[in-house]
Amino acid sequence: MKLSDLGERKAIEVISRILSRGDAAVGIGDDCAAIDFNQEYLLVSTDMISQKTHMPSEMTPFQIGWFIVAINLSDIAAKGGGPLGLVLSLGLPKNISESYLKELMKGANACTTHFGTSIVGGDTKETMDITICGTAFGIVKKDEFMPRKGAKPGDMVAITGDLGKAGAGHCALKYHIKDQDILKGLLEPTPRLREGRALAEEKIVSSCMDISDGLSSSLYQLQDVNHVGFEIDREQIPIASELLNIQERKKIDVYKYALHFGGDYELLVTIPVDKLDRAVKSMEKIGTNFTAIGKVTKSKNVTIVSENAKKLLKNMGYEHFKRHIF
Amino acid sequence: MKLSDLGERKAIEVISRILSRGDAAVGIGDDCAAIDFNQEYLLVSTDMISQKTHMPSEMTPFQIGWFIVAINLSDIAAKGGGPLGLVLSLGLPKNISESYLKELMKGANACTTHFGTSIVGGDTKETMDITICGTAFGIVKKDEFMPRKGAKPGDMVAITGDLGKAGAGHCALKYHIKDQDILKGLLEPTPRLREGRALAEEKIVSSCMDISDGLSSSLYQLQDVNHVGFEIDREQIPIASELLNIQERKKIDVYKYALHFGGDYELLVTIPVDKLDRAVKSMEKIGTNFTAIGKVTKSKNVTIVSENAKKLLKNMGYEHFKRHIF
Repeated sequence: MKLSDLGERKAIEVISRILSRGDAAVGIGDDCAAIDFNQEYLLVSTDMISQKTHMPSEMTPFQIGWFIVAINLSDIAAKGGGPLGLVLSLGLPKNISESYLKELMKGANACTTHFGTSIVGGDTKETMDITICGTAFGIVKKDEFMPRKGAKPGDMVAITGDLGKAGAGHCALKYHIKDQDILKGLLEPTPRLREGRALAEEKIVSSCMDISDGLSSSLYQLQDVNHVGFEIDREQIPIASELLNIQERKKIDVYKYALHFGGDYELLVTIPVDKLDRAVKSMEKIGTNFTAIGKVTKSKNVTIVSENAKKLLKNMGYEHFKRHIF
Repeated sequence: MKLSDLGERKAIEVISRILSRGDAAVGIGDDCAAIDFNQEYLLVSTDMISQKTHMPSEMTPFQIGWFIVAINLSDIAAKGGGPLGLVLSLGLPKNISESYLKELMKGANACTTHFGTSIVGGDTKETMDITICGTAFGIVKKDEFMPRKGAKPGDMVAITGDLGKAGAGHCALKYHIKDQDILKGLLEPTPRLREGRALAEEKIVSSCMDISDGLSSSLYQLQDVNHVGFEIDREQIPIASELLNIQERKKIDVYKYALHFGGDYELLVTIPVDKLDRAVKSMEKIGTNFTAIGKVTKSKNVTIVSENAKKLLKNMGYEHFKRHIF
């Protein structure tokens, strides 16, 4: 069977069955590996991007550098961690210019310093296609760690920020709308490190992950780990102003983007009902919206309610190796 | 200027000038990043390989998996560290088969378990060319850390094991010599983790690195960091039996391979003269040869003595983006 038939998540299952279990407290399948380290976990996240399969041609080298750092820091954020540093492996074709390399590293450096951390090492190799692998590591107290597993029926489902920024950036590229601010939503995402730390310190979250592959995909991933279901209230989903801006100009289905498009890097959280207010207040302090969009159910379906009708929510988020709807 | 003119080491200088200095105690340019962690350093090493530029077509997926783990563990070994774990990012074309993926992961898993560690996480992505990035992390007490910087004039230069195993494997491929044991020297290298730990515990090494890019290249890299020179005694260099085996069958210059060919992953060490015996004995205990091959000099030249003549040793080791002699 080819990976194109298997899909990314089945491929990860194949890998997981082969690996010997070692010191990782949280195994493959969570946003980060978490290694037992006295009173803390050492968090490690790794992500690879390559030009032909992940980078729109409009993406500047500065943005590529920013992006690879941001998506790795997002995984540290989703576990409640503080970042310790990042290493970057750069696979570059030999005809790449020195100025391209400089811009790439300026972007990577800008993102690390913006979030109070640094690039501490790396590797440069010659490859056919630009391929960049970042590995971020961070630290979190054990009792503040926010795992993927832990969602309980009755818990609320909530998200930081709003959805559709990356989708709006995708539309801007598709419809040739030259708006740098809208493009940034796709090409220069913001890892929710401050939000992750603040939620972790409150110790009120039952499960957490980042929404890198889209909301529907993320819900199905949480469902799979937690053996629960979700009922999402479509009207409660906060839609990014950038996506509404696109909707004013083009005939698009904003919910298709808000529900299924990847790249927003918001945190998807489950939280006991009686703790929701504390989370909202904690996020208010740092100027970030935190919105309940549904609840965890005993029934294992992932459903969406809109206009008084409940439907199954399809799992249409991004998955590598497979064909996609966007 | 293109990277093909700049070369890997100048590219790293360009990168290094852009990055803000952060928490890394040992910056870019050493085998690992070393992060201050109470009484210890957290060591992090990252390495990327891609099929078209690094993997001979004879390399099996099992060997690719073994290789990416081994070269990362080798960097941890060179700093005296014990490994904590490894993450792997797999960039794979979508027409790769499930059995290829399984073999790759079996090789990676075999190498980690052989050296008492484990793969704790990773990422799978779709790429055009097979590209794999491993990141190993380890731990070492601060007073046992073996840096690249520290070589003093008068110190001895020594290496673990012998040189030319990888060169012999390269020759076996070139001359179609079907000998799996010889090929393994190139395709399934052994990271010197036990040797690195044993030397570190003795606290006798003034500088250390692994010889991944070949002896001459490694000496020039140490020269650059330490502002010293080296005088190598060609007759003292232990040549791998596999390379001598090839020499019996084919007209090859064994010293070209022993001095310049990369991929042996032995440890290159500088050590005060009066500590050499202790190092030899410590290595004897674990069954590894440890051979003095020269000395550190005040003069900044890298020279080689053979048949009573002293010559400059050329820097002909492997460097990415540039053309090579092999």
